[in-house]
Amino acid sequence: MSDAIGCARWAIAAGHAPARSRGVEPAFTSHDRLCLLNAGAVLANVRVRVLYAAGAEVGPYRLSVAPRRMRHVRVNDLIFPEAIRLDEAYGLIVRSDQPVVVQFSRQDTRALMNAGMMTTAWPGID
Amino acid sequence: MSDAIGCARWAIAAGHAPARSRGVEPAFTSHDRLCLLNAGAVLANVRVRVLYAAGAEVGPYRLSVAPRRMRHVRVNDLIFPEAIRLDEAYGLIVRSDQPVVVQFSRQDTRALMNAGMMTTAWPGID
Amino acid sequence: MSDAIGCARWAIAAGHAPARSRGVEPAFTSHDRLCLLNAGAVLANVRVRVLYAAGAEVGPYRLSVAPRRMRHVRVNDLIFPEAIRLDEAYGLIVRSDQPVVVQFSRQDTRALMNAGMMTTAWPGID
Amino acid sequence: MSDAIGCARWAIAAGHAPARSRGVEPAFTSHDRLCLLNAGAVLANVRVRVLYAAGAEVGPYRLSVAPRRMRHVRVNDLIFPEAIRLDEAYGLIVRSDQPVVVQFSRQDTRALMNAGMMTTAWPGID
Repeated sequence: MSDAIGCARWAIAAGHAPARSRGVEPAFTSHDRLCLLNAGAVLANVRVRVLYAAGAEVGPYRLSVAPRRMRHVRVNDLIFPEAIRLDEAYGLIVRSDQPVVVQFSRQDTRALMNAGMMTTAWPGID
Repeated sequence: MSDAIGCARWAIAAGHAPARSRGVEPAFTSHDRLCLLNAGAVLANVRVRVLYAAGAEVGPYRLSVAPRRMRHVRVNDLIFPEAIRLDEAYGLIVRSDQPVVVQFSRQDTRALMNAGMMTTAWPGID
Repeated sequence: MSDAIGCARWAIAAGHAPARSRGVEPAFTSHDRLCLLNAGAVLANVRVRVLYAAGAEVGPYRLSVAPRRMRHVRVNDLIFPEAIRLDEAYGLIVRSDQPVVVQFSRQDTRALMNAGMMTTAWPGID
Repeated sequence: MSDAIGCARWAIAAGHAPARSRGVEPAFTSHDRLCLLNAGAVLANVRVRVLYAAGAEVGPYRLSVAPRRMRHVRVNDLIFPEAIRLDEAYGLIVRSDQPVVVQFSRQDTRALMNAGMMTTAWPGID
């Protein structure tokens, strides 16, 4: 376990998955991307809750990240218990039973070009 | 309240809302975006102060974020007590009476394309 | 002083000011931007050191940030004691005698479009 | 050593080096960039491990950063013990025997334009 790095809880406030795309799929499809890194020796069970500006929170979405692996999830692909609403602002709360590192990026191909953004999520330290 | 995550004070130094845009409104309007996440069970009352390179600070701008909700505010839409000056560098100090998570992004459509940026704000830990 | 927020020391590792630009100056000139916020009541005296991959460090570059003000500096405009080398990777060490918040952004207009990036600097906590 | 700043361990979750590029090389070649700053007086010996979604981790890749210097490494240039897989998500664990500051950026020129992203890595504080 000495290789584990990160936190058990993270938050992202800037979610907003563009609904339109230009260019070939899936390489140029607009999407928000949740990036999870599990550097430890134990499988991480992750639950993601989605908060919107209006309406009740949705979730948990359940994911797992194998030991010494990482996993990138296109937020557009979170469909159970309910598809993420496109073109609508949202936030994410990520909880894991093992330390993980969470970053967040966006590919926006609504216009002729491809805009990108990236940030490290906010770690929740109780 | 055990779901609350974040801090009561945040700062953003890199504000600079582009004054011009290309493309259809409002989707492609240039803007800086303040992203507030309230994961807790209590309404968060938020006050935002705006600092410029010259002149007195302006504010507070008052916002609220409902419990278990998030809220994205286009900085261009902060108009009371005074509209944010476009094409001018600024910084933000955010104070909340409940823990919130703050991120900041920019959409810049002054040129033919759409540049994006995103970062997590700086948390003020007294 | 109760309004002060931030740290006295910050580091940026990702500096790399593009040497070429397209579009009208100065709005579309490529540049790295150092963003300094002084939310406190006392003038902040800031010294910036520049580290390169080869050769001795350069500096200090001296700046000040008035109380309750912010200041954005285009790195291309740091010319004393020596102009920043364009198209060359660099890092920055920022020291201030008052708490400040430091973010860093880039506008890259070498190509037909305008790429942007932004991050919060790394705070040095001794 | 009083000038040293940073941490001995860092993690990046959002790695994904684009395989295609447009525009002249090497200025416009798509790449992820690992930015290392060593503000201290002692050479930093750095080992980087690469984690993927599938398969065993790869590494260590060995780098050094001279005292009072910085170093930017294009991830595409990490080829020993094995080239980084392009167009595949990955994460990085960075360990250093001296404090360093780590940031991470991407240049994506797959489309007609040049998208950029930048973030500060996650510091591992044991």
